[in-house]
Amino acid sequence: MSELTTRHPAWKRLESPWKLARLGRHETLPEAWIRASVPGAVQLDWARAHALPDYTYGRNFRTYEGLEDFHWLYRIKVPNSPRAKGEQLAFVCGGVDYACEVRLGGKFALRHEGMFTPFEVDVSNCPPGTDLDILVFPAPKRQATPADHTQASHVCKPAVSYGWDWHPRLIPLGIWAESGFFDRPVSHIRTVDFSYALSADFSSAAITVKVAAVGPSEEVRWRLLDPEGKAAVESSSPEATIANPRLWWTHDQGEPVLYTLEVELSGGDVHRGRVGFRRIRLVMAEGGWDGGAGLPQSRNNPPATVELNGRAIFAKGSNWVNPEIFPGKIDEGVLRPLLELARGANFNLLRAWGGAPVNPEAFFDLCDELGLLVWQEFPLACNLYPDDGDYLRVLDQESRSIIGRVRQHPCLALWCGGNELFNAWSRMTDQSLPLRLLGGNCYELDPSTPFIATAPLGGMGHGDYRFRNEKGQDVFEIFQKAGNTAYSEFGCPGPSPVDYLQTFIPEEELWPPKPDTSWEDHHAFGAWAGDPSSWLMLPTLEHYFGKAGSLEELVAQGTWLQCAGYQAIYEEARRQKPVCSMALSWCYNEPWPGAAGNSLVNWPAVPKKAYFAAQAACRAVLASARIPKFQWRAGETFTAEIWILNDAPGVSPGGEVEAALLVGNSATPLVKWTFPALEPGRNLAGPTVEVILPAAAVREFLLVLSVTPHKAWTSRYRLSLIGAD
Amino acid sequence: MSELTTRHPAWKRLESPWKLARLGRHETLPEAWIRASVPGAVQLDWARAHALPDYTYGRNFRTYEGLEDFHWLYRIKVPNSPRAKGEQLAFVCGGVDYACEVRLGGKFALRHEGMFTPFEVDVSNCPPGTDLDILVFPAPKRQATPADHTQASHVCKPAVSYGWDWHPRLIPLGIWAESGFFDRPVSHIRTVDFSYALSADFSSAAITVKVAAVGPSEEVRWRLLDPEGKAAVESSSPEATIANPRLWWTHDQGEPVLYTLEVELSGGDVHRGRVGFRRIRLVMAEGGWDGGAGLPQSRNNPPATVELNGRAIFAKGSNWVNPEIFPGKIDEGVLRPLLELARGANFNLLRAWGGAPVNPEAFFDLCDELGLLVWQEFPLACNLYPDDGDYLRVLDQESRSIIGRVRQHPCLALWCGGNELFNAWSRMTDQSLPLRLLGGNCYELDPSTPFIATAPLGGMGHGDYRFRNEKGQDVFEIFQKAGNTAYSEFGCPGPSPVDYLQTFIPEEELWPPKPDTSWEDHHAFGAWAGDPSSWLMLPTLEHYFGKAGSLEELVAQGTWLQCAGYQAIYEEARRQKPVCSMALSWCYNEPWPGAAGNSLVNWPAVPKKAYFAAQAACRAVLASARIPKFQWRAGETFTAEIWILNDAPGVSPGGEVEAALLVGNSATPLVKWTFPALEPGRNLAGPTVEVILPAAAVREFLLVLSVTPHKAWTSRYRLSLIGAD
Repeated sequence: MSELTTRHPAWKRLESPWKLARLGRHETLPEAWIRASVPGAVQLDWARAHALPDYTYGRNFRTYEGLEDFHWLYRIKVPNSPRAKGEQLAFVCGGVDYACEVRLGGKFALRHEGMFTPFEVDVSNCPPGTDLDILVFPAPKRQATPADHTQASHVCKPAVSYGWDWHPRLIPLGIWAESGFFDRPVSHIRTVDFSYALSADFSSAAITVKVAAVGPSEEVRWRLLDPEGKAAVESSSPEATIANPRLWWTHDQGEPVLYTLEVELSGGDVHRGRVGFRRIRLVMAEGGWDGGAGLPQSRNNPPATVELNGRAIFAKGSNWVNPEIFPGKIDEGVLRPLLELARGANFNLLRAWGGAPVNPEAFFDLCDELGLLVWQEFPLACNLYPDDGDYLRVLDQESRSIIGRVRQHPCLALWCGGNELFNAWSRMTDQSLPLRLLGGNCYELDPSTPFIATAPLGGMGHGDYRFRNEKGQDVFEIFQKAGNTAYSEFGCPGPSPVDYLQTFIPEEELWPPKPDTSWEDHHAFGAWAGDPSSWLMLPTLEHYFGKAGSLEELVAQGTWLQCAGYQAIYEEARRQKPVCSMALSWCYNEPWPGAAGNSLVNWPAVPKKAYFAAQAACRAVLASARIPKFQWRAGETFTAEIWILNDAPGVSPGGEVEAALLVGNSATPLVKWTFPALEPGRNLAGPTVEVILPAAAVREFLLVLSVTPHKAWTSRYRLSLIGAD
Repeated sequence: MSELTTRHPAWKRLESPWKLARLGRHETLPEAWIRASVPGAVQLDWARAHALPDYTYGRNFRTYEGLEDFHWLYRIKVPNSPRAKGEQLAFVCGGVDYACEVRLGGKFALRHEGMFTPFEVDVSNCPPGTDLDILVFPAPKRQATPADHTQASHVCKPAVSYGWDWHPRLIPLGIWAESGFFDRPVSHIRTVDFSYALSADFSSAAITVKVAAVGPSEEVRWRLLDPEGKAAVESSSPEATIANPRLWWTHDQGEPVLYTLEVELSGGDVHRGRVGFRRIRLVMAEGGWDGGAGLPQSRNNPPATVELNGRAIFAKGSNWVNPEIFPGKIDEGVLRPLLELARGANFNLLRAWGGAPVNPEAFFDLCDELGLLVWQEFPLACNLYPDDGDYLRVLDQESRSIIGRVRQHPCLALWCGGNELFNAWSRMTDQSLPLRLLGGNCYELDPSTPFIATAPLGGMGHGDYRFRNEKGQDVFEIFQKAGNTAYSEFGCPGPSPVDYLQTFIPEEELWPPKPDTSWEDHHAFGAWAGDPSSWLMLPTLEHYFGKAGSLEELVAQGTWLQCAGYQAIYEEARRQKPVCSMALSWCYNEPWPGAAGNSLVNWPAVPKKAYFAAQAACRAVLASARIPKFQWRAGETFTAEIWILNDAPGVSPGGEVEAALLVGNSATPLVKWTFPALEPGRNLAGPTVEVILPAAAVREFLLVLSVTPHKAWTSRYRLSLIGAD
């Protein structure tokens, strides 16, 4: 399916096969041609042609090493196209990763750097059969740095593929977005920019439709169809007003209402897309201005609360990373199951993390449709991007392309300069020119969408990524002691399920897990600089449970911790509302099979048990227990505060929570709490239970909070119990 | 003297008298004309014509109330000017405070809002004697707010004149900047933009001279003269390189070297100005990236250290406020004595506070010449400036005018959006569109100068403004417990000297000072919302010294506290280097006679005793004592850490500090400390002294740190001593 002809129904795509050759140097003549798939990557074509093994299995990805250091020549022939008068033949390239030179009939046509800016060549005057060449340059690698993500600190190529604690070092290269020849009107629509200003009471929207067209000027007409397909506005002027627009909401706060915008030139070219009306802000949390701390006084924390259509919401979600190593593979088929799962997890916001490529249109179309907000970062992460003219020029171009495209989507919640740029491991500051540039471009091109320079900002928190830190605190304790305005990253690692591990770890390596095997390549050992035992965390598992006797036992232990951890953190973050208004776990998905890690969903879209723990913790309303720690001793006094967590937009009826302790087969009723009707979005604190834990044969106990009549609000906490010794 | 003809020596100023009429309403015909002085203010003309009493004396300023609510019509006649071919007659207006309509021969010519953007009218075709009218609208006052600075929260008119704790409510209006008729070449220079990029090692500068000219295009030539008047560069291209440019330094770090830039059009128009070469950055302090605080982790504090030409410096200075209530009075004659005093105080940076008008060129010219850095704020302070199209349009215009003008000056250290905008009393945030606009404009127009959205940012501190806070801590203790990266505001109030008070407080009101007299109008009572006793602080004086028996005694008490406080804070801030790298007292000067307040210099340019205390504490090198508190009891153990504070750019020779306690006539030697040679800019910590304070008849004692052979580094601390009881 062609994304371009969907938006431009009057355009006709002409097929022509691609071929590809690996060159020794820039000037080398191509020798052996192989078939190329576009969109794709040179590595994928090379692997197909030379029967390289599946890079997702075992340690195979290492055989792909170094392919990114060659020049690669793509070639396609201008097709034969009998064209009507008033039509042109254009080559449209959606994106080349990362820099290229284009030649037409052997002659230089253009040079291009930056994967997020499309380019076009009018080939109407080229005889059919003319070669169009795209010479892709080797992947940029900054000299004099270690072979890690710092090699991408001078370019707009996403840093993740240079190696991350959950991403192998495998650096994609090639034409990654839809590209090809199109018959289209000479007078055609280049871009349509839909913007609007909602009145303060949302009763009307002043719409502006800016159409950038190429060719002789023609009349522009546009119309807006409501979800039922009825024309809500029709106009031949760029400005119009719509009364009572139906607002776009996240799925948990309302309906993600979309309109269809159709723009037509009198000459016949048409542009079609979906739009929505919403007002998005980052605001101070309720009480966020209180509590001046005496003098000398510093600033108040920056706002971190998402306000959608005038309503402050608690942002629940996760960090979205690239769902494939090769961006050319990321299409609707890859995205839809992942995004439907995200919605199914009761998430309302995804942070599209800056280490990864900015997603293609299908991602934003799906988020528009599913009612998921998107925090969109520019491709900067954990590096010191320089105040350098060459870099700034490309960043300017790339950011303008990204902003111009993504601002059309109602799902867009905020712009962010990139990941952790103000932390010691990046060393950028508010004065860094790349971030000043991004702030300026976002204001110029999209002032109605919030912009933050990076995350975390003051008040926001990143981490912990372990169940238990070096001080011996578990995440129950860590997050109860934290007081951040937003937890924009937090994680609990866990191993993947046994049957999943079996699909990519050779059987002989499966047990016991060891460094320097596929386990390590798939991030089970030494993955993260912060902890050598990441992400399998054997010492932590042994601390709580002793040595596991089998893979099944080990996976069960780690999965337990991951589930208990995510449940504890999501719920604690929600309990800290309104001081806190955001909980985004690190991370949602993964680009290839991880043996262990923080993700909730295994590649390509297989939910882990932790996914369901997050899903339960993110229910709109639930009974919740504030439990001081994960592991308890028999004879110890167990305590827990009972709460109702509530993000529902309407009033919810009251009910009763019955708390009970289950140890083995024995159930101890603890308390009954009758709670009143819930105000929209307000939590309720209830009683605290206290009970002395009995000695038992089992190594675990359950706290169950049964809610009547709202069975769906019932929660259970599975905790560790050890002997009295 | 004409500022315009100094910069444009080929222009000829033509005199023509101004007159002024007060109108009841917009459309009212002028009746009684009075003489007008331009630049000036309608209030000054009105006062002269109607013999209003001097507004600086007693409570007289109240008689000026309401004059700002009228329409005022300025009129000037187009002069007779026999012009050569190729010349034009232009009316040039440097600035109208705040909005106006211009009419020519009774016909509408233009409407203008914003005092910092000049405008011009070509009157070449108007017969001599034609009336040029400038109808000034009433001062903007936002409805439905109290009669205070919030009335200016929707405009670019500086908020201070609407009333501040050290500024009467007296709202200037009228033509405040040089305006008049000029014979000039039709082809003339509008603006000259001098910019440059210094090489990393400062061995060369790539210069760009952009000339915006009006009229038929002509050749541009420019040359740069070194301080000795020799041509360093001559060029007819916009770009040129200068080898080994002599760098501009602050007076305490080197020489403020200035070059002269002369630009000439082939038709004869000339533009002349002074420029300098320096690289200015805001950088992280040494060690500023250390000490990650565990997870969840927030951002590192933003940088607050001024780096000049590659050298991190400690910024010592103060907050500059408007030196006159009426901006039309602020000229070189007003500015030079104040700025020479600032340099004399060993200051190297002034923060031009956003509540006040942006200063005229003479201010920046003088700071260029004297080697004083300027932190320049836009005219926003302590208000919630709105995300509003009308406001943003004027702010865009005004900020572009301000940036385009001020960026030419080497004294410019940083841009700042305005004062305390992220604090609870303002409630702007990083998302506020006015601040996003200013950030974008500063990046677009002046990327090589740092920009901060407001002060304080995270890590920076504002306050305290009292010697003793509500917890009973004095500033010695408060600042020793603080750990800010920059103290961009701190103050200690004091009364003005008796002979100064006598010049503006009627004799019958002088003793005892009382509210609801001239004392209150001149800020001695109820001035600051934070403390009803501000700024005379009688309860604080009584706490330390008991009730004063005379004005002389009262003034002596308050002056002592102010001097001791400023000495303690400046020195403590310097001691906290490198964590702290900035100490700017609140405030340096004042716009009219204050009876009591935080300023170091009385209006118009009379240094208080506190000025000399600050001057001593800001010496490049000095012996310094870290003393826990101001008031001691006989019998108590007095302790003090001995330090050498050192901001000198070179190595300083070692020496010896001899500490002694002086109580009445008795001197107790405490310690001798031989200290080694001082590394550039490095403090030295020495021994701690301890001594039991004797009972004494006197109520004070001195700690003296005598330095040999560097007598100029000697310091003395005068402290309070009370009975043992």
